[in-house]
Amino acid sequence: MGPMAIKPVTIAFDVMGSDHGPAEVIRGAAQLSLESPHIHALLVGDRAVIDDVLAATRHSGERISVQHASGFIAMDEKPGEALARKPDASVSVAARLVAEGEADALVSAGNTGACVLACARHFQLLPGVRRAALAAVYPTRMRHGGKEDPFSLILDVGATVEATADDLVTFAVMGAAYARIISRNEQPKVALLSNGTESTKGPRHVVEAHARIAGLPGMKFLGNVEGVDIPKGTADVVVTDGFVGNVCLKMLEGVHETVFELAQYAHKESLRWRAGLAMLAGGIQRIKDITDWEQYGGAPVLGFDRIFIKAHGRSHARAIANAGKIAAKAAANELGKSIQQGLAR
Amino acid sequence: MGPMAIKPVTIAFDVMGSDHGPAEVIRGAAQLSLESPHIHALLVGDRAVIDDVLAATRHSGERISVQHASGFIAMDEKPGEALARKPDASVSVAARLVAEGEADALVSAGNTGACVLACARHFQLLPGVRRAALAAVYPTRMRHGGKEDPFSLILDVGATVEATADDLVTFAVMGAAYARIISRNEQPKVALLSNGTESTKGPRHVVEAHARIAGLPGMKFLGNVEGVDIPKGTADVVVTDGFVGNVCLKMLEGVHETVFELAQYAHKESLRWRAGLAMLAGGIQRIKDITDWEQYGGAPVLGFDRIFIKAHGRSHARAIANAGKIAAKAAANELGKSIQQGLAR
Repeated sequence: MGPMAIKPVTIAFDVMGSDHGPAEVIRGAAQLSLESPHIHALLVGDRAVIDDVLAATRHSGERISVQHASGFIAMDEKPGEALARKPDASVSVAARLVAEGEADALVSAGNTGACVLACARHFQLLPGVRRAALAAVYPTRMRHGGKEDPFSLILDVGATVEATADDLVTFAVMGAAYARIISRNEQPKVALLSNGTESTKGPRHVVEAHARIAGLPGMKFLGNVEGVDIPKGTADVVVTDGFVGNVCLKMLEGVHETVFELAQYAHKESLRWRAGLAMLAGGIQRIKDITDWEQYGGAPVLGFDRIFIKAHGRSHARAIANAGKIAAKAAANELGKSIQQGLAR
Repeated sequence: MGPMAIKPVTIAFDVMGSDHGPAEVIRGAAQLSLESPHIHALLVGDRAVIDDVLAATRHSGERISVQHASGFIAMDEKPGEALARKPDASVSVAARLVAEGEADALVSAGNTGACVLACARHFQLLPGVRRAALAAVYPTRMRHGGKEDPFSLILDVGATVEATADDLVTFAVMGAAYARIISRNEQPKVALLSNGTESTKGPRHVVEAHARIAGLPGMKFLGNVEGVDIPKGTADVVVTDGFVGNVCLKMLEGVHETVFELAQYAHKESLRWRAGLAMLAGGIQRIKDITDWEQYGGAPVLGFDRIFIKAHGRSHARAIANAGKIAAKAAANELGKSIQQGLAR
């Protein structure tokens, strides 16, 4: 694969409904407009709020436009009901704009269920895809791909709860295509999550998926990996169903919380420990960098004909800007086409 | 519940097939014989090896006896085939002795699959139990029960891969009975692992199990917990199927490895970091204590009429001695009866 394309692209940002409020998302888009001349940001949400925040934030006016949307879905709302009740919710308006070609990709930090559902309503599944998957990038001990990323990709992490063998095969192809484009990893190592490395381990649909992924031409398949391989980063792409993936991803978050609670505890506990922590500051920062989801920005929903990157609900401006860059990269490099080619093999 | 009973009990130790070899298991039993006057250890394995190690190890001769077994199952053998081919494997001989009443419980650090299968062949499932579960004790941020244990219990972690709603309900009852006896936790908080806290979240069998566990009298049911709650320790007992539980447990191992690899790296990297680590020694030791599975010894197989404690394959003597103590406690306090009472409700 040659150098990555940098084509001008438009990214629609659903600015509403994130944990830190619209200002944080708008500031992220503003930052992006200063950093990335090839990206145009289309901000979708309450126009008055957007204008106010932009007026107070340094940005490149020619790379930002605004589309008013009168409603939004809150984090604690039930996705299906809320979307039905609020046809003008920002996430629906933004998805519609992308579907109509007004933008090349969608970024949101709002209610994940509502995002996935809005995509399902406005986008089309790619030919051969029965179920879309929500993927997540997470920090690992080992480094990956041409950019030496300390991240792996895991999917599905909750677009749906169950998966057939067919779905798992599709997830493998989609995850590989994404890693190829986003991590500049020409031959991503793909693995199936199971309860043992032998090909016969796991529930029936996992065993069947193993045999079929192993037979895919052009796929660098490691076979099964186990839970221990997730933090290690044995594979570049870990394939599992949405229930297991969701549990794993949230466990990683819990571990991160635990490590930093222990560090805070050590800081308070004794002067000597505090001095020790200070001396380790460089090392701790390195761990923080590795386990900090903010720097890798977003998680793609894979399987639709349009690109959607879900930023974490607690994203600050920097994470939003990074999600925008990832969305632009996926769009410019025709992620959907790449997935279709993988599925056609 | 009154104070715990300390009845004299006999524990059969399968001394063969662990990662560190029979000597380590024999030394664990020897240590136990010095520490716990109410426990008699019946060592099952190669008599020549056992006699040699005992001759070189301080122990209480009157609390140790030996039963020769000519074969053993190695870690990398397929459990079913190996058990069929080796009727005199130490784990089979030990399980038979327990089934015949020669010992009250079984401890092994060998091939997990072979252990569970040997139990299934020699022990009876308790009335009302359709599927046994392998439980595991793991370290958490929060403390639990009367002993302020920094551990939670998770089950099933791999006795079987799938579970019905019925099985999950049984796992909840069995886990609660075990926590009540081993952690002196009169009202253990039981939770079901899912991809969201709402009772409607998860695959169908999880949703159904939720409704049924919620209706059990005398059960302190927290409802669903998520992956983030596993390292946190929100629940005393986490209920899930063997596939998901196995992935979670191995993820915890992987995280432990990652943290200590990073600490070693910091140690090597710079003099200043090394000094910082030294100053934090007390705190790091505390983390090590918390995440060290050796001190909590073993994982029970629940659902049979006999007690079996699986020690980790990499157990050193101390972990083996602790597994023996746990087995003795479970036997003396009639774990099986307690489970049956829970299921009868």
